[in-house]
Amino acid sequence: MRRIETNGYSLEVGSIIESSFSNLLKQKYADSKKVILVDENTHANCLSYIITNFSELSEAEVIMLPAGEDSKQMELTYSVWEALTEYGITRFDLIINLGGGVITDMGGFIASCYKRGCDFINIPTSLLAMVDASIGGKTGINLGHFKNQLGVFSNPVALYIDPVFLSTLPGKEVLSGFGEMIKHGLIADAELYNAVRDEMLHGETLEEDILVRCIEVKNEVVKQDPKESGLRKILNFGHTVGHVIEGHFLPTLKLSHGHSIAIGMVMEAYISMKRVGLSVSDYEELATFILGQYQLPEFSDEDIKSMLSMLQNDKKNRADKILCCLIPALGECVYDQEVDEQMFLETFMHFKNLQVNLN
Amino acid sequence: MRRIETNGYSLEVGSIIESSFSNLLKQKYADSKKVILVDENTHANCLSYIITNFSELSEAEVIMLPAGEDSKQMELTYSVWEALTEYGITRFDLIINLGGGVITDMGGFIASCYKRGCDFINIPTSLLAMVDASIGGKTGINLGHFKNQLGVFSNPVALYIDPVFLSTLPGKEVLSGFGEMIKHGLIADAELYNAVRDEMLHGETLEEDILVRCIEVKNEVVKQDPKESGLRKILNFGHTVGHVIEGHFLPTLKLSHGHSIAIGMVMEAYISMKRVGLSVSDYEELATFILGQYQLPEFSDEDIKSMLSMLQNDKKNRADKILCCLIPALGECVYDQEVDEQMFLETFMHFKNLQVNLN
Repeated sequence: MRRIETNGYSLEVGSIIESSFSNLLKQKYADSKKVILVDENTHANCLSYIITNFSELSEAEVIMLPAGEDSKQMELTYSVWEALTEYGITRFDLIINLGGGVITDMGGFIASCYKRGCDFINIPTSLLAMVDASIGGKTGINLGHFKNQLGVFSNPVALYIDPVFLSTLPGKEVLSGFGEMIKHGLIADAELYNAVRDEMLHGETLEEDILVRCIEVKNEVVKQDPKESGLRKILNFGHTVGHVIEGHFLPTLKLSHGHSIAIGMVMEAYISMKRVGLSVSDYEELATFILGQYQLPEFSDEDIKSMLSMLQNDKKNRADKILCCLIPALGECVYDQEVDEQMFLETFMHFKNLQVNLN
Repeated sequence: MRRIETNGYSLEVGSIIESSFSNLLKQKYADSKKVILVDENTHANCLSYIITNFSELSEAEVIMLPAGEDSKQMELTYSVWEALTEYGITRFDLIINLGGGVITDMGGFIASCYKRGCDFINIPTSLLAMVDASIGGKTGINLGHFKNQLGVFSNPVALYIDPVFLSTLPGKEVLSGFGEMIKHGLIADAELYNAVRDEMLHGETLEEDILVRCIEVKNEVVKQDPKESGLRKILNFGHTVGHVIEGHFLPTLKLSHGHSIAIGMVMEAYISMKRVGLSVSDYEELATFILGQYQLPEFSDEDIKSMLSMLQNDKKNRADKILCCLIPALGECVYDQEVDEQMFLETFMHFKNLQVNLN
């Protein structure tokens, strides 16, 4: 059990059975009603593990949502608020989010807006949620196809990250989580990047030390800048291009978030090489490694035109400039870098031609 | 222009033309888009005053909602989020809430959840919003008939309270605001209570000093306890019974919030006399004064039964006890007082008989 210091809540990595969870339930929430929010997958694969091991939850209400990003909308969110109201949940009760990023994002938002804020605990079950989504207080839902358009900054009372749940994940989901782990290395810790790469290339089961280090990177950044007024923006490395790739290919390829971000990182590393001095050898090494793990999607001139137009609408832009994070070296990141449309066009063209060569 | 010290935002009472509003728009929001949220009434009666006097707002988008408590639901809230998205509003832009409590509550919630928090300014136009709703960071909307069931604590960037808008109000609205002003006196400042009473009995136009003092009472309480874990509960004096009266008579009498709270205060003062030593003479004086201004609704045994059952479901209750604020003396208030159902029954019976005698 590893305890990581945060801004005012409890973050523990390791077996939840040995964590402070049981004591917290017994002490702070003895008289509170408990609600567990799950999706179809965690209802089938994770809920019984929790219920069996924690008798304090024997009378908890369980609310189940359909799995997947499509659930992350107001209609279902509102139906959960109605259910909480029906169960007579007060602001002294507790909501436990047991699931991947959709459940922790959405459940955090639901709890934070219910009666102006009800306590919640996150138990992430996907690798992506463990190393990224569940940490840092970003909660939210989508508005139509605008991702996380509605939300608040709000931290859980406690966050328990138990690798036991990783065995319930399909390979695509694990690969998606690794995308964000690569990012944590690239922006903050070259040694971590090397360790993640070695793990992906040669590892069997994920080393807990690497998981902990990834969580520490995310936690350190959000501790210093909880509301993303500066430093926290480095966590968006790979996301300017990555979000566009994710959105553009959603109807056809359905790339996972981590997969899209991985491709985005290679492209933004390419821009970093052209603009802020990332060495050619470092760029080539990381591009070869990442594109070996995450297939580069094929795209046409028409796709490029559409992606360039999406870039103009990015949430991180200010006063119509496209802002991007770049890495001058492995383990270093600079944010709020203005990149013009021409550079993005050149980058997309480079990877379009690379795609032809890879085939 | 009076500046009142708050927790980190600007609160000014007096003519908005002489306030810091124009400078704030010019300096902090020069490059930001502005959106003004109004209802039908403030669109007709207040908007042109603001637009004419502040050229910085000449290109502001205006979003108008239907007037009244029925608007304070998710459906309209969501349509405002869609409109903000359509206008391309970013989290660096500004929302200005121009209206009564429905607009400031709802607009604060809308801004606070949009892209995880967009700046907002409150310009309350009703007396009730000036002395109560717009101060203290409570934002929210109703869920069906559950009042303020969804919301967050979130302060505006600035709050401008300009009595000029009071002239746009119908008498019923002014009377409603006075209800909360009486409360501020009764719970915290006997001298203020006397001043509010004299103003209501003999005044012509509302003295700005009294308005300022009421705002100070509310502001001092919420500064000390922003999230209502203790002291702030005294602001609920009159509200345990008042909310039940407001809800129960909504379909028939449509009593205003302040009117319902005024009746609630008389009844809770009656309980205070029976339970915590409020003197008979103080009780009789305030009951005579308040019931002279706010008509006591007629109610039957059937009404009493229904109101008692509503009391059991009050949001302030914990572990099935009915909690209430009581006043041991004018200008003093104690919170979290357990009052049993029998006492409420006795109180309702007393006022049922009083009603007969008043007629």
